[in-house]
Amino acid sequence: MKTKEKSLAENIADDIIARITIDKKYAVGDKLPNENELSADLKVSRTTLREAIRILVTHNILEIRRGKGTYVKDNHALDGGIDLNTLSAFPMDVKDLYEMRLIFEPQSAYFAAKRATDKELERILHYGRLEEDLILKKQDRTEVEQAFHKSIAKATHNEFMNRLMPILYQAIGKGVILSNAKEEIVQNTLNDHRMIMEFLSNRDALGAKTAMELHIIHAMRGFGIAEE
Amino acid sequence: MKTKEKSLAENIADDIIARITIDKKYAVGDKLPNENELSADLKVSRTTLREAIRILVTHNILEIRRGKGTYVKDNHALDGGIDLNTLSAFPMDVKDLYEMRLIFEPQSAYFAAKRATDKELERILHYGRLEEDLILKKQDRTEVEQAFHKSIAKATHNEFMNRLMPILYQAIGKGVILSNAKEEIVQNTLNDHRMIMEFLSNRDALGAKTAMELHIIHAMRGFGIAEE
Repeated sequence: MKTKEKSLAENIADDIIARITIDKKYAVGDKLPNENELSADLKVSRTTLREAIRILVTHNILEIRRGKGTYVKDNHALDGGIDLNTLSAFPMDVKDLYEMRLIFEPQSAYFAAKRATDKELERILHYGRLEEDLILKKQDRTEVEQAFHKSIAKATHNEFMNRLMPILYQAIGKGVILSNAKEEIVQNTLNDHRMIMEFLSNRDALGAKTAMELHIIHAMRGFGIAEE
Repeated sequence: MKTKEKSLAENIADDIIARITIDKKYAVGDKLPNENELSADLKVSRTTLREAIRILVTHNILEIRRGKGTYVKDNHALDGGIDLNTLSAFPMDVKDLYEMRLIFEPQSAYFAAKRATDKELERILHYGRLEEDLILKKQDRTEVEQAFHKSIAKATHNEFMNRLMPILYQAIGKGVILSNAKEEIVQNTLNDHRMIMEFLSNRDALGAKTAMELHIIHAMRGFGIAEE
């Protein structure tokens, strides 16, 4: 599941996006410079530029008005208030999501160990035990797995983390489906979850963080995602 | 800027939210159990429960229909497709956002050092230098600061991180306004940014990560946000 290298045209498309979103060189509704100018400016052939524009048209970022030129569309994904829900409109791979989980979830476990109320801890353990049962009975655990991770995020008492979690579900959902296929991954999940629950119960923040890190690394290795 | 302790009613309000979002005990449109039942179930007084419900009504999560009871509203923030843009509708403090930055941005710098194309690196350095100029001239640097961090996120080649950055702007925006007030913080920013740029130029991922970590810790300390 190695990320494929981007083509030159994709890199140029990225660069055009950066000119819109970061450099504010072209605004929504603006007409891009003509092909000769733009290809010279970007230092690429006109063929590559055309391919880049085609990619951006497909992603609804540019539009070609016949006989008029190429314009920046009013795409919500481009404005300042970008919405993570539009993520699905863009190429996104499991690796991107797991990299994000690896950054985000260990620290969630750390804060949860320190900050969870007794009630919140109870909820985490409830879903953790429920998931163990389902794994042993070989039943679908997608929803319970989500509830487990969601209840940890809630216990961070960080509203931002709490709200980011649902966005990461996509990855967790995909993960559960894929990982049921391999007995080794299922065993790792059982062990990892038990450790996470034990550390959380002991209010051991560093332990909980490290166990969560291991849990996500296990999942990444199961998918064949290597670190870079 | 220490986070204030939550009141009992706020904790109960949180618990009701968890029953909706995590336990799926009450769905949108559902009527909550009556006051006696719910206060017994939640093990709180009816006064505290009423206060919790009032909080949730204010946040548009519950509604009281006169003579009928209390219902779960159809609030976008509660459904699975939660939207980080609705963050602003909830109590959110600078500490939550900086905790998130401290998790997220050092790793962004790490990946940027490893993955940035030459063009992307050029863009980062361009905004870094531009910001230095503005700081020295004591001019507003809010936008350029955002472009600097945004161009680092872009260079991670992780679409998820790239899209999370705009959400963090709120914090960065607030940060710049506040931190201009103290000469010490401005000096730290100058030094930190120079280090980040140097490490990135050398493609030194660990160096870039650590310098970014320091940069955000500096900002947090400037605001009086302590680690927990």
